Amino acid sequence: MIFKTTEHVTPHEIPRYVKMHDLDNVAIVVNDKGLAAGTVLDTELVLKDRVPQGHKVSLVDIEQGEVIRRYNVVIGRALKPIPKGSWVHERLIEMPPALGFEGLPIATSPAQVLPALDGYTFEGYRNKDGSVGTRNILAITTTVQCVSGVVAYAVDRIKNELLPRYPNVDDVVGIEHTYGCGVAIEAKDAIIPIRTLRNISLNPNFGGELLVVSLGCEKLQPERMFPPGSFPVRVESLEATGPETVCLQADHHVGFMSMIDDIVQTAKPHLERLNARRRETCPASDLVVGVQCGGSDAFSGVTANPAVGFATDLLVRAGATVMFSENTEVRDGVDQLTMRAATEDVARDIIQELSWYDNYLGRSKVDRSANTTPGNKAGGLSNIVEKAMGSIVKSGSSPINSVLAPGEKLKPDQKGLVFAATPASDFICGTLQLAAGMNVHIFTTGRGTPYGLAQCPVIKVATRNDLARRWHDLMDVNAGRIASGEASIADVGQELFEMILAVASGKKTWAEHWKIHNSLVLFNPAPVT
Amino acid sequence: MIFKTTEHVTPHEIPRYVKMHDLDNVAIVVNDKGLAAGTVLDTELVLKDRVPQGHKVSLVDIEQGEVIRRYNVVIGRALKPIPKGSWVHERLIEMPPALGFEGLPIATSPAQVLPALDGYTFEGYRNKDGSVGTRNILAITTTVQCVSGVVAYAVDRIKNELLPRYPNVDDVVGIEHTYGCGVAIEAKDAIIPIRTLRNISLNPNFGGELLVVSLGCEKLQPERMFPPGSFPVRVESLEATGPETVCLQADHHVGFMSMIDDIVQTAKPHLERLNARRRETCPASDLVVGVQCGGSDAFSGVTANPAVGFATDLLVRAGATVMFSENTEVRDGVDQLTMRAATEDVARDIIQELSWYDNYLGRSKVDRSANTTPGNKAGGLSNIVEKAMGSIVKSGSSPINSVLAPGEKLKPDQKGLVFAATPASDFICGTLQLAAGMNVHIFTTGRGTPYGLAQCPVIKVATRNDLARRWHDLMDVNAGRIASGEASIADVGQELFEMILAVASGKKTWAEHWKIHNSLVLFNPAPVT
Ligand SMILES: [Ca+2]
Ligand SMILES: [Ca+2]
Ligand SMILES: [Ca+2]
Ligand SMILES: [Ca+2]
Ligand SMILES: [Ca+2]
Repeated sequence: MIFKTTEHVTPHEIPRYVKMHDLDNVAIVVNDKGLAAGTVLDTELVLKDRVPQGHKVSLVDIEQGEVIRRYNVVIGRALKPIPKGSWVHERLIEMPPALGFEGLPIATSPAQVLPALDGYTFEGYRNKDGSVGTRNILAITTTVQCVSGVVAYAVDRIKNELLPRYPNVDDVVGIEHTYGCGVAIEAKDAIIPIRTLRNISLNPNFGGELLVVSLGCEKLQPERMFPPGSFPVRVESLEATGPETVCLQADHHVGFMSMIDDIVQTAKPHLERLNARRRETCPASDLVVGVQCGGSDAFSGVTANPAVGFATDLLVRAGATVMFSENTEVRDGVDQLTMRAATEDVARDIIQELSWYDNYLGRSKVDRSANTTPGNKAGGLSNIVEKAMGSIVKSGSSPINSVLAPGEKLKPDQKGLVFAATPASDFICGTLQLAAGMNVHIFTTGRGTPYGLAQCPVIKVATRNDLARRWHDLMDVNAGRIASGEASIADVGQELFEMILAVASGKKTWAEHWKIHNSLVLFNPAPVT
Repeated sequence: MIFKTTEHVTPHEIPRYVKMHDLDNVAIVVNDKGLAAGTVLDTELVLKDRVPQGHKVSLVDIEQGEVIRRYNVVIGRALKPIPKGSWVHERLIEMPPALGFEGLPIATSPAQVLPALDGYTFEGYRNKDGSVGTRNILAITTTVQCVSGVVAYAVDRIKNELLPRYPNVDDVVGIEHTYGCGVAIEAKDAIIPIRTLRNISLNPNFGGELLVVSLGCEKLQPERMFPPGSFPVRVESLEATGPETVCLQADHHVGFMSMIDDIVQTAKPHLERLNARRRETCPASDLVVGVQCGGSDAFSGVTANPAVGFATDLLVRAGATVMFSENTEVRDGVDQLTMRAATEDVARDIIQELSWYDNYLGRSKVDRSANTTPGNKAGGLSNIVEKAMGSIVKSGSSPINSVLAPGEKLKPDQKGLVFAATPASDFICGTLQLAAGMNVHIFTTGRGTPYGLAQCPVIKVATRNDLARRWHDLMDVNAGRIASGEASIADVGQELFEMILAVASGKKTWAEHWKIHNSLVLFNPAPVT
């Protein structure tokens, strides 16, 4: 990556641009306010147009039909001649067709396994199944949206009346969702939302304490959500009866308060057990980090995502698990992924997941290009190919060791870099990564989003100084310093790695500070009824 | 309908059964605990099996292959011989195939228009567009899930700090949803969630006060949600700029609290205008009632739904608008609906909506039979045909005057009985009826559900005495008295009609008393990305 600045102006006015690869014929403008036509970027490069921040400038004359190359990847072809120094906006670029799934390189060049990184630890809550929580939360699982008003009432009461007595418990969270009834539960794809809900309940941050509130007549019965053997049994006596369940329609519930009291009383022993836990020193290999981007701009792929990629490599070297996701944002780099797969099996799993998703979109006659947003385009990302290249860099350079289908849970031996196939929707991706067993979430953003989850800490990384400045109490890390030359990718990557260890040990993120979070959103490819 | 009781036992033990139509060959058992084998129901009818409450008993010997008839409708055929007095459970019944859409009776027998019912009024909030609110709520509309954590924080602050100063304002509600980004917004069916959100914001209970919180980079931009002319403009100066919008990514927001302050300050004039309003006497014709059932049992179609049908007829006679919905629950009675259509156009619109829905389900290889739940079956409903017949009776006996597609808003001239096509999912149906302009919601339940909405009062009607007794502070009306012979359908229907007027005038429902409500759930037939 090449950063260029001229020397003859005051630092904050220096025209800056960034080229990702030697062979690229476009670069992007770094300066907060963009650069005016006539700006001299280089002895040989003078801007012909005003170019907004994050948008592309042509470094050479590009003929009509010639390829436009960024990240050393063809992001499209010129729809008309583009003289050197021009603003290369989306209307000048024809998007290339999606790569087919035939003839892809299969595990041809998995990266070398990087040298192990020893000695990094964090303070976490060790669970009986070997997983480690970074938070100590009582989750109240629900089988169906019907019960969520009652659960919210009970959660409020538990927080107000009980939680002060259990100071080691961080929070009480109702796992509210829109699934459970009024859905085609026998449809083939219904397995996705069902296993997602089951696996979320088993997230390491909930300490293996399973408390389920059911209505009684819903399609998603507790036995269906938790078939025998699907959950770790804490108390011998529960083994025969399934997870501990409060059923609102049970005959013994007379009056609303009997339901509330039942939930509150049932919560008590769980709170007591959670409260008795203490953080202990755990190796970094117990981290399960989910990385994601949202509200992306052209800097996502230049600053924040490469810094995340650097941290991903450090985590993998330390033995941790790192999941990257967002199907529509890796689709255009499928060849890079299959090439990096550790084994042929992994490569085929990647193809399987991405072709399944192509079909899912195709049923409604859309494709991966439905991903990009007005904000992406305003931020300089011309199309999904360009966006994808900037998104994939979050995965760093390790071999891809395994693949998860949506809603699946990581097995204990699935370490290192994992492709967890999910939609790119921030909330759906986060929900599915939670189900996979994530205990720290990394989220990069260029345009800015106040994203947070109640179930897991979210470290937000800003791509630009201006966003980091304005959203100083929402962004946890500023990767914008990479573009302004104040820090290297390695600097910010290392800082993020250390921030992950600190947050895993209990340091609060800004979203936790303000107690703001988003809803869980299930991926349900099957119809409602 | 025929209720039968024998005379020789104490009242609460009297064996009771109910037959819906003279030509039916099955009836259902009324008694709370069901009836034992050997019970003498009649001089000529002795139970051969134990029959649970709400389940069917054969009134005659039924041959293998012979039809089983309830509501004078064929609900299936006997899979083996069923002797008189047997428990006719679902495993004995073969479900009939769905009716085709060809050759249906088209507006052949719309019911006679019932005599007008004058003089009924309620106390409501008259809006500038002529609609009437039954509640006086400040709604904060959101364009995307990203902003919901921030909006929830701002809503809390408005409730705690401002609302005490505006005693005539009932509530402040954030319109949170999972749409707005990460969705295929150019897909054909995306029109449904988009217009739903737009039309919810215009619900009469929000007084025409439009306050939108947007992120900035989302796919569903405020201009797309509210294209010019789509919203009633209150302040001249807003006309050119669209609805009042707080955009979190706006440059002037520096720090989280600047976003919160901006939302709170923007809310103030809206609260002041809402607070200045007073209830005034309005004719019952200003009511827009949405009827729905959920957690149904065999009594839904015997007690609560017929009582709702009676109230529906009263409302229609009083000039009000009543919407019935739930596509998969009317699908098997499509011939009844097309027959009752006021015009051929209406009949064709019904067919259009139901065939669109068949196709929607068919894309995932399911059909309307995906509707029924374990609770339905445990409650005695053998299949979707039987459930449908019990669901349709909520619509009473008026001609069907018009049809709404999902998410559409009623036009001022769409009065009387309306088929608002929606999925049967309780939350999706309620959300779409809100978008249509509902100001009172009626919800019947047999198994029991604590359903509520923050945007509109929900009157819950229990189908059985036992549910009404146990859930005495969640159920607003007890239609179970119809089965036990304590009240007629007309008695309960009249009581419900009067309850609707009282609730529309400000009387709190139980869900409002406890402040419990469910999430809005959008119907998005298009994919996520
Ligand atoms: Ca992304
Ligand atoms: Ca995302
Ligand atoms: Ca229903
Ligand atoms: Ca028409
Ligand atoms: Ca329903």
